[in-house]
Amino acid sequence: MKSEAQFLELIDTHFKGHHDFVALGRGDDCAVLTGGKDLCVSSDLFLEDVHFRHEYFSAADIGYKALAVNVSDIAAMGAKPVAFTMDLMIPSNLDDEFWNDFFKSMSMLARQNDMVLAGGDLSKADKLGISISIFGVAGSTGFLKRQNCAYGDILFTIGDIGLARTGLMALEATGTKAREALPAAVLAHLRPKPKVMIGTLLNAAGVKGLMDVSDGLARDLPRFLGPELGADLTIETKTLNSNVITFAQTIDVDPVEFALLGGEDYALLGAVSPFEAGKAESVPGFTRIGTVTKEPGLTVNGKTFTTPGFDHFND
Amino acid sequence: MKSEAQFLELIDTHFKGHHDFVALGRGDDCAVLTGGKDLCVSSDLFLEDVHFRHEYFSAADIGYKALAVNVSDIAAMGAKPVAFTMDLMIPSNLDDEFWNDFFKSMSMLARQNDMVLAGGDLSKADKLGISISIFGVAGSTGFLKRQNCAYGDILFTIGDIGLARTGLMALEATGTKAREALPAAVLAHLRPKPKVMIGTLLNAAGVKGLMDVSDGLARDLPRFLGPELGADLTIETKTLNSNVITFAQTIDVDPVEFALLGGEDYALLGAVSPFEAGKAESVPGFTRIGTVTKEPGLTVNGKTFTTPGFDHFND
Repeated sequence: MKSEAQFLELIDTHFKGHHDFVALGRGDDCAVLTGGKDLCVSSDLFLEDVHFRHEYFSAADIGYKALAVNVSDIAAMGAKPVAFTMDLMIPSNLDDEFWNDFFKSMSMLARQNDMVLAGGDLSKADKLGISISIFGVAGSTGFLKRQNCAYGDILFTIGDIGLARTGLMALEATGTKAREALPAAVLAHLRPKPKVMIGTLLNAAGVKGLMDVSDGLARDLPRFLGPELGADLTIETKTLNSNVITFAQTIDVDPVEFALLGGEDYALLGAVSPFEAGKAESVPGFTRIGTVTKEPGLTVNGKTFTTPGFDHFND
Repeated sequence: MKSEAQFLELIDTHFKGHHDFVALGRGDDCAVLTGGKDLCVSSDLFLEDVHFRHEYFSAADIGYKALAVNVSDIAAMGAKPVAFTMDLMIPSNLDDEFWNDFFKSMSMLARQNDMVLAGGDLSKADKLGISISIFGVAGSTGFLKRQNCAYGDILFTIGDIGLARTGLMALEATGTKAREALPAAVLAHLRPKPKVMIGTLLNAAGVKGLMDVSDGLARDLPRFLGPELGADLTIETKTLNSNVITFAQTIDVDPVEFALLGGEDYALLGAVSPFEAGKAESVPGFTRIGTVTKEPGLTVNGKTFTTPGFDHFND
């Protein structure tokens, strides 16, 4: 790709279509998002050698995941995505085929979620980087927030905990060979599935709070509970994905502890009142992990748990 | 700055405050922007060694300009900014003083424009990079778009054309010495002034279309006119900033041609009907540069002008 015009043309080829919530699309100083409903917005980075490596991420994987991690934030609000903007940092070493695969994969995920690309920016850069801002709308029930639970509430997750970390560690250790040994884990890292439909169902089911688990449950749970509350968790090894158990045993750590520290799960963490849990419990994948306690702090299977989770700067 | 938590704390110190258009601020999976009014949105990158160099950009300059270029897109819609999100790429070589100056300067510009930081993402990176998405609302007159002019309309600019390019070239050639030789030009490059108030006045004055001149007038004018129309410009050398004239003469090029190719002006380019131009002409800085013609193509001072402007990938 030699010029900005060629890039914009390729983007137009892949990202077509209109959306009721986009009154003015790409090509002006700004896009215009239609008023009338509150919009939720989130921004996430997806950077070469920080969030992905070319060694085991294909162009299609990168295009997919850069958008998927953003969609996951919308899902965690119990909302539906409608549009996104993309700032793209473009190194000179990627060929036309790469970009075609990248945009094709990203645009397929966009279409599946009925959202359009509303704008963005292009720049040359040393390494590939994607910064996406995404916009969503809630149903009649509003948005599901963090720090909106009370003593006695049931805590639950939907989606595998620790599986993406298993995939990442296996890929880092053995490269693409990991695809055969731990296929579910590798897929969880390369192609996390945003749970938009699940989030919408949970919202309609009267769930009180919901959160995207992206830095590991151990680190994200206190953020979900807020400073005043704690949690008492019961997590049996057998509830974990078998890839997590296998890998944790290989490196000789406790599978539950490993799972709690796993970053990039893009699982959902939620709280529901024990008196109104019926509907939520029937949502596919609902896994009860414990209850909210009066005092701050985390107990797992009867023991105090203090190890911090993933830190973006130090891990 | 050693951890993500320390960064978030510093950000909270500098970016305080609430906004009527932000129903839920930082700290959740998403922020929530209040519905009721259409929102305009724009995203821009500001990257080390592409958009700025540490050699002649202070931390305060970087923090300021990263946000200012985004505010300029809102101004060009005739709108007012209300909030922004920031994805920050953080290299390890910048100290606490740098970050304090960076956030202080950025937050001052945010306060001056009555907007709040609604969310974002932090990541380590090799080089400093800032990706900002910004949100604005229009007055009762709606948003000012591109490609909304007709044959015979008056074309005008507000803000110096070519001045920022003069500053950039002088800084690249002579470093910070350029500050003394060409102070206005250096300031135009380091600290471009977003014209929010001017945009609002032009909107109220019945201007038909408005655009942010960021890639040079020669390149941006066809984008503004659309494929069906052209422009006949009359630009006298004496209307240019004296720094532009001085510098162009030094490097032995025609000052008008140099000015037309200047990127990063963050001037406004607009069109107004000749029958309704009275109010617009009274807006401070209004400079008539020509008229819209029936046929595509650009004529400057009676001669056809074909040199393309700035291309992000090749210049």
